[in-house]
Amino acid sequence: MPRVVDHDERRLQIAQVVDQLVYEQGVQAVTIREVASRVGYSTTVVSHYFSSKLEMLVFTHQVARRMAEGLIDEAVRTNRPLIETLEELLPTTEERWRNWHTWFAFWGMAPAEPDVTREWREGTSNAHHLFLRLIKSAQDAGQFPEAVDCVLAATRIQILVNGIASLVSQDRAGWPPERQKQTLRDLLQSVFPLH
Amino acid sequence: MPRVVDHDERRLQIAQVVDQLVYEQGVQAVTIREVASRVGYSTTVVSHYFSSKLEMLVFTHQVARRMAEGLIDEAVRTNRPLIETLEELLPTTEERWRNWHTWFAFWGMAPAEPDVTREWREGTSNAHHLFLRLIKSAQDAGQFPEAVDCVLAATRIQILVNGIASLVSQDRAGWPPERQKQTLRDLLQSVFPLH
Repeated sequence: MPRVVDHDERRLQIAQVVDQLVYEQGVQAVTIREVASRVGYSTTVVSHYFSSKLEMLVFTHQVARRMAEGLIDEAVRTNRPLIETLEELLPTTEERWRNWHTWFAFWGMAPAEPDVTREWREGTSNAHHLFLRLIKSAQDAGQFPEAVDCVLAATRIQILVNGIASLVSQDRAGWPPERQKQTLRDLLQSVFPLH
Repeated sequence: MPRVVDHDERRLQIAQVVDQLVYEQGVQAVTIREVASRVGYSTTVVSHYFSSKLEMLVFTHQVARRMAEGLIDEAVRTNRPLIETLEELLPTTEERWRNWHTWFAFWGMAPAEPDVTREWREGTSNAHHLFLRLIKSAQDAGQFPEAVDCVLAATRIQILVNGIASLVSQDRAGWPPERQKQTLRDLLQSVFPLH
């Protein structure tokens, strides 16, 4: 079905441009016209793929979170150590920092928009379920205390990772990768003592 | 100096309108024209108070964070128990939820804008220093372990509070006030054991 593939690819291509625009100029700079001009299509073509600015932003958020979801999924399949996977989610690289930036931008979108709140709920719920799988898999591999309640642990790990990322995103120079990783390791050790 | 008071009051009045607009429609809806129309001034008058959309948004962020800063400051002056102050920062009320929404929206603004990154740094650094004072004051009052390093503790408390708020902001219904407070108390107890 080449037409469908082409459709999805164009949407992805447009999402990349939206992401770049949000990074360079903020959500307030995203307009169908500006995106069309950057991607090299007419506004009519862009409107064929996205019916509104909001739909473009929701899709761009989905693309950013699917990247993180894919990363956790891969970690579970390959039995990667839990701590390595969590560290990889932190904004220690330019690419990951941009993902976090997209997420924060989206968390600041309008709660009055049902498409926004639906995507918030779906994003946080998917993340929670992936963290659950990650923890169960770490328990099976003997990397995480068996006695810990998975649901509670998944929530706490989300809190720690999001909390660290929130500080890094406001002061990138003050949070080199090693500081982020050490902070995460120390907090995990306090919250889930291995002994 | 009535003129100065008037100037500051008008800026505050405009900031409230910007805040409401960001909440209702997101950062992307903020334009000088729309703000002018809502506040009941001409665009020329609004432009007299703010030279750009960006300057309006930066000031609105400052107003939101000064509210939290005032709250911590008051807590230190009145020797309020640490846990109560931290709980009051959580998005457990409509008003506080809106503050957090404004902060997230601002954290997703463009890092290429020096005014944005300056305000990020100033916001996170002020918050850090206020948390430091809060912890020292709690130590003096015997509410917080003396042996804990204040600087490290301030950072960790920021991580926990921001992390909880990040989950609440995406799923408000799933996080009633009691769940937020209990989660914070449990995490504080793990990270800073009192015994």
